[in-house]
Amino acid sequence: MAKKQEFVKEITKMEDDFPQWYTDVIMKTDMVDYSPVKGFMVIKPYGYAIWENIQSFLDRRFKETGHQNCYFPLLIPESLLNKEKEHVEGFAPEVAWVTHGGSEKLAERLCVRPTSETIICSMYSKWLTSYRELPYLYNQWCSVVRWEKSTRPFLRTSEFLWQEGHTLHETAEEAQAETLQMLSIYKEMAEDLLAIPMVDGRKSDRERFAGAESTYTIEALMHDGKALQSGTSHNLAQHFTKAFDITFQGRSGELEYPHHTSWGVSTRLIGGIIMVHGDNRGLVLPPRVAPIQVVIIPIAQNKEGVLDKAYEIKKELEAKGIRVKLDDDTNYSPGWKFNQYEMKGVPLRLEIGPRDIEQNIAMIARRDDLSKESYSLDNLGESISALLDTVHNDMLRRATEYRDEKTFTFKDYEEFKVKMKESPGFAKGMWCGEEECEAKVKDETGVTIRCIPFNQENLGDTCHFCQKPAKHMIYAAKAY
Amino acid sequence: MAKKQEFVKEITKMEDDFPQWYTDVIMKTDMVDYSPVKGFMVIKPYGYAIWENIQSFLDRRFKETGHQNCYFPLLIPESLLNKEKEHVEGFAPEVAWVTHGGSEKLAERLCVRPTSETIICSMYSKWLTSYRELPYLYNQWCSVVRWEKSTRPFLRTSEFLWQEGHTLHETAEEAQAETLQMLSIYKEMAEDLLAIPMVDGRKSDRERFAGAESTYTIEALMHDGKALQSGTSHNLAQHFTKAFDITFQGRSGELEYPHHTSWGVSTRLIGGIIMVHGDNRGLVLPPRVAPIQVVIIPIAQNKEGVLDKAYEIKKELEAKGIRVKLDDDTNYSPGWKFNQYEMKGVPLRLEIGPRDIEQNIAMIARRDDLSKESYSLDNLGESISALLDTVHNDMLRRATEYRDEKTFTFKDYEEFKVKMKESPGFAKGMWCGEEECEAKVKDETGVTIRCIPFNQENLGDTCHFCQKPAKHMIYAAKAY
Repeated sequence: MAKKQEFVKEITKMEDDFPQWYTDVIMKTDMVDYSPVKGFMVIKPYGYAIWENIQSFLDRRFKETGHQNCYFPLLIPESLLNKEKEHVEGFAPEVAWVTHGGSEKLAERLCVRPTSETIICSMYSKWLTSYRELPYLYNQWCSVVRWEKSTRPFLRTSEFLWQEGHTLHETAEEAQAETLQMLSIYKEMAEDLLAIPMVDGRKSDRERFAGAESTYTIEALMHDGKALQSGTSHNLAQHFTKAFDITFQGRSGELEYPHHTSWGVSTRLIGGIIMVHGDNRGLVLPPRVAPIQVVIIPIAQNKEGVLDKAYEIKKELEAKGIRVKLDDDTNYSPGWKFNQYEMKGVPLRLEIGPRDIEQNIAMIARRDDLSKESYSLDNLGESISALLDTVHNDMLRRATEYRDEKTFTFKDYEEFKVKMKESPGFAKGMWCGEEECEAKVKDETGVTIRCIPFNQENLGDTCHFCQKPAKHMIYAAKAY
Repeated sequence: MAKKQEFVKEITKMEDDFPQWYTDVIMKTDMVDYSPVKGFMVIKPYGYAIWENIQSFLDRRFKETGHQNCYFPLLIPESLLNKEKEHVEGFAPEVAWVTHGGSEKLAERLCVRPTSETIICSMYSKWLTSYRELPYLYNQWCSVVRWEKSTRPFLRTSEFLWQEGHTLHETAEEAQAETLQMLSIYKEMAEDLLAIPMVDGRKSDRERFAGAESTYTIEALMHDGKALQSGTSHNLAQHFTKAFDITFQGRSGELEYPHHTSWGVSTRLIGGIIMVHGDNRGLVLPPRVAPIQVVIIPIAQNKEGVLDKAYEIKKELEAKGIRVKLDDDTNYSPGWKFNQYEMKGVPLRLEIGPRDIEQNIAMIARRDDLSKESYSLDNLGESISALLDTVHNDMLRRATEYRDEKTFTFKDYEEFKVKMKESPGFAKGMWCGEEECEAKVKDETGVTIRCIPFNQENLGDTCHFCQKPAKHMIYAAKAY
């Protein structure tokens, strides 16, 4: 997609101004643009193709685990939103209200869905009769609207794309197992597709979803030391099923309320990819999610045989299922193209010129570590498939090392405050479990408890913030 | 997905009450349900899976023809909607208006997109600079809202799912070629995927899209003799590009307005599948779009070896890329299952019992013609793949024959009125091209000109409605 500004332009250094670096990268790589509606973004093809790859991975995993897709209405009557008390308190302040249809004023206001628990529960209540029909394992892909005051493309926008799964189960144990299964699929996707290591755990009560019994989360650490909540899975227990009077005849013949979960990830993940892997040259895309995995740039393409060979290689790679672009545009020099695709984060650049062909080789440059090596043209498809896996593994390893470097254990509140200022990252420590303690830390430092990780370490007996008896080991960080 | 009513229940005969037959079929086969918001439907998994198959076919064809997906905001400022005069007149009466975000009243009303020409053109105007960037070939998959007074699931609902392509071109010729290319892809999809024959042609000026220069359409004939507009492709010329001041530097150095197209199909197609192929037993799904292509029903499944063989067959068919369900639920008899999957329109039913296994055969029943034959278990995957193609071809042939039987040529307005009453269908005749003539026919009979077909036949020199000189041969019908 075209743009008014020159394509290759200086990107602000991330050390100088991280937010500006982020904006430069997303704008100059043509992933996204601001729209005429404040807080709403346009996702351009290069950004959208990343989302399509995320969708395709997750949709396959959802179906493998027995889920089916469906579609529920965009608009939700105010009376439905009001049914679950915590939920309406959480969402009502940030919904968009439809008040008129055509020229007529509506009898009841409708909100544009901020999430679909309420409309879906109203249907589940109509449908469910017997334990034999359970579980309900449904998901939808859609957009949602939450009226945000301060927005940033991908990270926080008034409309975003996501999937939302909504399931019902006969027993509390099954609902809990589902909640954790879906979180683990998110973690698998983050690591196997996006090369982003995640800390997984439970949210504190203060940070849980409005209406949930428990919220589980995967949290990633960005290059600036801030955390990004990247996916959540909620055990909603019977909060909504009671509020919406969803019942079924149980095995004993008695009417029972089913146990309920919901879970979602969104286009926010794209912001995570940028801020975990990107560098001062621009994007660095993990190979499995990259729209273009290999760009082929012919050198001296007017020389006989060069373009033919380039197209032959393209065909060979495509036959291996690799996403390839051959850029034979004669308006730009190879050097200009190198810069362009480096900025766009294409994992591998393959250069092929007359001398390479003579020697039966191609030069391959890796975007992730900027190394360059020659490869035999024999079995090139296999070499490149293997190299893409190597790049993925190296990116995941480096991101994990970086995160671990940025993770520190603190012994008391003073040390915590100093470290968070000097070198922000994940802070590990013990916590008393009290909401006042958590609120005080947030008010005074802007840092939140990101999660109570599944992987609990015993770091002491007292709360590292307030010295009361410790209840949980936690990760804390500033967050997006 | 479960439902309160008993699964197998009498479906109203289509000869007795066609609209009731339609409602019975969609409700009893669990494709769709009414939602708490008037005019909005819930698409249940069995209906949604059909939409996923349509999406997958079209998305592949769009990409093969150079299009890319992207995403534009759901909400459109009123001032943008107002920019193209015909467009706002056409759509303003049927849009949903957002007036409040959270508790604040908005300075400007936003409409929920009824279609996205205006918001997309506002971005194109920002992006486009030079002829070198053209064509723009973009598409989005989303839902749109049009406030309808009278609705029917799939056919006309206040929200529906669709895709909308929006392209810009350097020349009028290229825009026209794109408009026709996309219509031909829709026709290919209808015939090759849905087994529905289409008449393709141009809409009259009265029936064209609000803001278009020309609208092209594919029209199908339903079982009740009414037409269903199934996909449209618009040549928008420079109507929007001028209104939105989209310009580019042309080859001569002068500023020019690009030429513009848009095109879409929606979940309405699912209504078409039902009304073209269905019968008094329920759905009859064309194999290539059916969520389940083959249902395997084990007979006497408690007998040794039966379930093992059934699962072995399932695996063999899945390896061939066939969508298979094995129903080994012991709560229901094989006979009950036969009825259920017949109603749900599953193209092939495979029965396998102890005697079949002894003889190395399976019984296969076709849903489309209700025939039943035994097949050797050797190379079953290949036999069934071939049979699914046969079923597709037979369904397309029968639908074409039925449509042709229901198509008649009329000589004058009186004959037209009588035939349309006695045996409604496609009426072929000559038309003067005058809007008053067209309006009079619609007012007096409820019949509209569906299209001026590409395949023009010379049926006379005078308009068969009003006897003025004839300009076009047309298809007319009552329509959904």
